[in-house]
Amino acid sequence: MSDSQKHYHVVDLLKNRWSPRAMSGESLEHEELLTLFEAARWAPSSYNHQPWRFVYATRTMPEWEMFLNLMVPFNREWAQNAAVALLVLSHKIFEYNNTFSRTHSFDTGAATQNLALQGFAMDLVVHGIEGFDYDKARIECEVPDSYDIQAMFVVGKKGPVTVLPLELQKREIPSDRLKTEELIFKGKFGVKD
Amino acid sequence: MSDSQKHYHVVDLLKNRWSPRAMSGESLEHEELLTLFEAARWAPSSYNHQPWRFVYATRTMPEWEMFLNLMVPFNREWAQNAAVALLVLSHKIFEYNNTFSRTHSFDTGAATQNLALQGFAMDLVVHGIEGFDYDKARIECEVPDSYDIQAMFVVGKKGPVTVLPLELQKREIPSDRLKTEELIFKGKFGVKD
Repeated sequence: MSDSQKHYHVVDLLKNRWSPRAMSGESLEHEELLTLFEAARWAPSSYNHQPWRFVYATRTMPEWEMFLNLMVPFNREWAQNAAVALLVLSHKIFEYNNTFSRTHSFDTGAATQNLALQGFAMDLVVHGIEGFDYDKARIECEVPDSYDIQAMFVVGKKGPVTVLPLELQKREIPSDRLKTEELIFKGKFGVKD
Repeated sequence: MSDSQKHYHVVDLLKNRWSPRAMSGESLEHEELLTLFEAARWAPSSYNHQPWRFVYATRTMPEWEMFLNLMVPFNREWAQNAAVALLVLSHKIFEYNNTFSRTHSFDTGAATQNLALQGFAMDLVVHGIEGFDYDKARIECEVPDSYDIQAMFVVGKKGPVTVLPLELQKREIPSDRLKTEELIFKGKFGVKD
């Protein structure tokens, strides 16, 4: 392979990462959890605002059941085998001048993708969840008004696919994606090559 | 290093990526640009909705000046040496049931982080921009109402720091970050170890 050709490959970590659901129910070591947050920390953000915040519960904490109960039953069923559940928050306000940040959600998505990639590199399951009660989460986790709730994530050690309900066992493979050319436009929205 | 210890390191790509501004003014090969979008493509999203879209202009396209002119003068000054400018959009509506997506911004942040990481791995400059005219961008790039504009990004070949204004030369180093413990809470917002 020539030196220039090697630049045309998508980095394996980015290409291979996916979001399994089958977890073993084991705990993580605290250092493992901190490593995930450390990865999130290095994402870029507008004015280096770093709006991302994570409220977490491990399966041995008293808040664990509360976190699980925020989820719709479909998600609770597989997520109960996670080691940690996270509520992902974004600070809507720039701290340096007290104005609204346009990119707090977007930037927090970047940080959480770092976390997901790090988890994949550590052979962990990292899976995002939107099917939960956002309003109840705000109350139970005492989230201030100046923070938006973006998503929940669960992280756990990999488990055998048989821990999943039959219907989910069939879906325990990486999802396909739209074609690259469906995502890009030239100069104006809708304009293709 | 033991097998378990190696899991406690943040992946180099995640830790080392940063957002320089000094670019050479050279163009990218089209295949390089497509590789960046290909990396974005593999991000996770709620219901695999893949809300991210990218409107791009390369420096040889007629739209190049229009893209540069969306930026505030501070950003235009260094961004003019980029090879490509991107307008990053997110589809607010789930296509499968025509309802609002709560995570379109967040998911698009994840995809764009993949793009930024891929660019860094390819030794390119990838730099996000929030200092531009969002309303004008919507009109000029004909962005439909069902899409939000998240950010602009520029991508280019690295250049010598001397292409930057003196003030920016001093800032051409990776920014620091908040400490990990400032980002995380235990069970409830604000609760620390």
